[in-house]
Amino acid sequence: MVGGGQLARMTAAAAVGLGATFRVLAESENESAALVTRDVTIGSHLSLPDISAFAAGCDVITFDHEHVPGPILAKLEFDGVLVRPGSGALKYTQDKLAMRERLSALGVPCPRFAPVSSVADVVAFAGGTWPEVPNSWPVVLKAVSGGYDGKGVWVCESTGEVEEVLSLGIPLMAEEFVPFRRELAALVARSPSGQGAAYPVVQTVQVDGICREVIAPAPGLSPDVAVEAEAMALKIAAELGVTGLLAVELFETGGGGLLVNELAMRPHNSGHWTIEGARTSQFEQHLRAVLDLPLGSCAPPEGTFTVMANLLGGTDPDVFDRYIHVMAADPAVKVHFYGKEVRVGRKIGHVTIVGGPEDDVAEVRDRARRAASYLRWGTEDGD
Amino acid sequence: MVGGGQLARMTAAAAVGLGATFRVLAESENESAALVTRDVTIGSHLSLPDISAFAAGCDVITFDHEHVPGPILAKLEFDGVLVRPGSGALKYTQDKLAMRERLSALGVPCPRFAPVSSVADVVAFAGGTWPEVPNSWPVVLKAVSGGYDGKGVWVCESTGEVEEVLSLGIPLMAEEFVPFRRELAALVARSPSGQGAAYPVVQTVQVDGICREVIAPAPGLSPDVAVEAEAMALKIAAELGVTGLLAVELFETGGGGLLVNELAMRPHNSGHWTIEGARTSQFEQHLRAVLDLPLGSCAPPEGTFTVMANLLGGTDPDVFDRYIHVMAADPAVKVHFYGKEVRVGRKIGHVTIVGGPEDDVAEVRDRARRAASYLRWGTEDGD
Repeated sequence: MVGGGQLARMTAAAAVGLGATFRVLAESENESAALVTRDVTIGSHLSLPDISAFAAGCDVITFDHEHVPGPILAKLEFDGVLVRPGSGALKYTQDKLAMRERLSALGVPCPRFAPVSSVADVVAFAGGTWPEVPNSWPVVLKAVSGGYDGKGVWVCESTGEVEEVLSLGIPLMAEEFVPFRRELAALVARSPSGQGAAYPVVQTVQVDGICREVIAPAPGLSPDVAVEAEAMALKIAAELGVTGLLAVELFETGGGGLLVNELAMRPHNSGHWTIEGARTSQFEQHLRAVLDLPLGSCAPPEGTFTVMANLLGGTDPDVFDRYIHVMAADPAVKVHFYGKEVRVGRKIGHVTIVGGPEDDVAEVRDRARRAASYLRWGTEDGD
Repeated sequence: MVGGGQLARMTAAAAVGLGATFRVLAESENESAALVTRDVTIGSHLSLPDISAFAAGCDVITFDHEHVPGPILAKLEFDGVLVRPGSGALKYTQDKLAMRERLSALGVPCPRFAPVSSVADVVAFAGGTWPEVPNSWPVVLKAVSGGYDGKGVWVCESTGEVEEVLSLGIPLMAEEFVPFRRELAALVARSPSGQGAAYPVVQTVQVDGICREVIAPAPGLSPDVAVEAEAMALKIAAELGVTGLLAVELFETGGGGLLVNELAMRPHNSGHWTIEGARTSQFEQHLRAVLDLPLGSCAPPEGTFTVMANLLGGTDPDVFDRYIHVMAADPAVKVHFYGKEVRVGRKIGHVTIVGGPEDDVAEVRDRARRAASYLRWGTEDGD
């Protein structure tokens, strides 16, 4: 696996169970996955020689992020390396404009979008007359490539704000601002043989563009919409030729419609709940897919639901000191810590609680939130 | 963790989630746990210098087996190393006679036992007159120390068989042969602070002294007997001063009574089901106990049960070739492979299936058995 973050770390743990030999290309010995993996190569995912040397000893390579440049991926494939997902699929995570164009061509519902390179382009997209600010504002500007966790996304209320973003000098696209009811995510896996498997659709709660909470399955989701979302994700995976996991971030609109927000082709934050909550974790599923093994059951044990809350860094670096409170207060909380240096607002872990038929979703959400808050701030009532 | 077997391997995976830094003392780089642990020290668990050097960089040491000699444990403790479980507890796993004497003194029901060193001792124990073979035979002879997985246990039908065992020249004890209804196991954890936690009592199925199958919880077990078994295990853990896990192997007799068979103070084969089947796996629980963190919930998600079948080695070393069949045939099967060289009859992995309220225990057992059989022999109908 190229990349040494928490996704590779949790994939390493899944590889232990599967008995698969697992190697990580990390940037340093102290990266999250490097700390727990036997076989670590230090190198850069931006360097063809580094990745080529790394891949030479691997049956197949996969990724914990989408940041390996397309030309490097193409060269590896040309050299006969099994790259999963392949460059042909990954480009749609690296170029949001290409993704929008391709999805639209497939008839997949997306927010209205357009490439923009000037204030005039944005105003034209918004349908207003510069410098007035008509009702179709705000407009969302996105970096065509490189964004994540809210970075590279700007919600602009005025042409002044648009000018600021344009001054960054990076390729941009505009998207309509979707007044969504909530955010959902559909996670599916696809194997090289074409087998597909879909996890239950989840609700994700974002704060400032960062995922804070996932509820699986999404409470109160209409079965029709759930099937539509799963079918849409499986269709995208098949049409784009994805091998491994595909996470489709979705907006649920007021009328119960769905619009695709983002794609990720790897284990995804919206799937961390599967470690405890589903019969096959997303990390094992990704390995099974890229190894072309039959996919595992995505089903949660009957009657269960799962809440995951992300743990963000606070101001006190010693998270372990706070384990004792959280574990004593709620023995059903499962804490995951990524071994990353604590910095304010950085994702450094997550907590998971599996609820049963007698449990109340709101109550379990509250417990998960309290645990994450305590681990972050030393109080159950923080954010 | 001292010892590099599969228990350490699965503990390593649990340490990843907990974010605990985990180091293994293994005998070689190719041992099961060494293959997947970042921080491996090669050395012998029989060498005081090796263990001392290993322990020097650890906050606490624990074990994946009970084979570190008592004097070494005592010396480590004298030197201030935190050894959990401690030598005072571990001696009862290393000396079966001391264990029987201690448990009997505590009023814990055990099979009748006696130290023996001659045929006359055994005949006297059996209550018969040598060389006749009265009805109280067979007699079980056990090595006082060093046995596991059926090794070091002999069921003798005659004085001739007793003579053969005596000829080994090792310290022996005799035990009555218990015509049990079935075997159970009670798994508990105890922290240095004295907190205790009990997993549901399971049924274990042994063939030739090797655990082949675990059903959790034990089907049809009377709630009174379950409570009695859990209370007994918690009492033994407290009285013996166990820190970490304690597995109590039990005979359930025809009348529903319980007799203690063996003790283990570490993660135990009868607890592998907890990885998928309980809110806290036994491996995480052991770490929480030895780190003096509050213990996690031992409860399975409501309405679920779990079947685990051990995977023994067959004649074909390439288990991976058979993954595809097992995974395709039953997407709910979770395969665990220990990365050990395949040898006939050796424990090389296990499979787990979690069942829900609609599932039938016998049917899930059959599925688990078929998966393990296929991985072993390439046919679902092997053994």
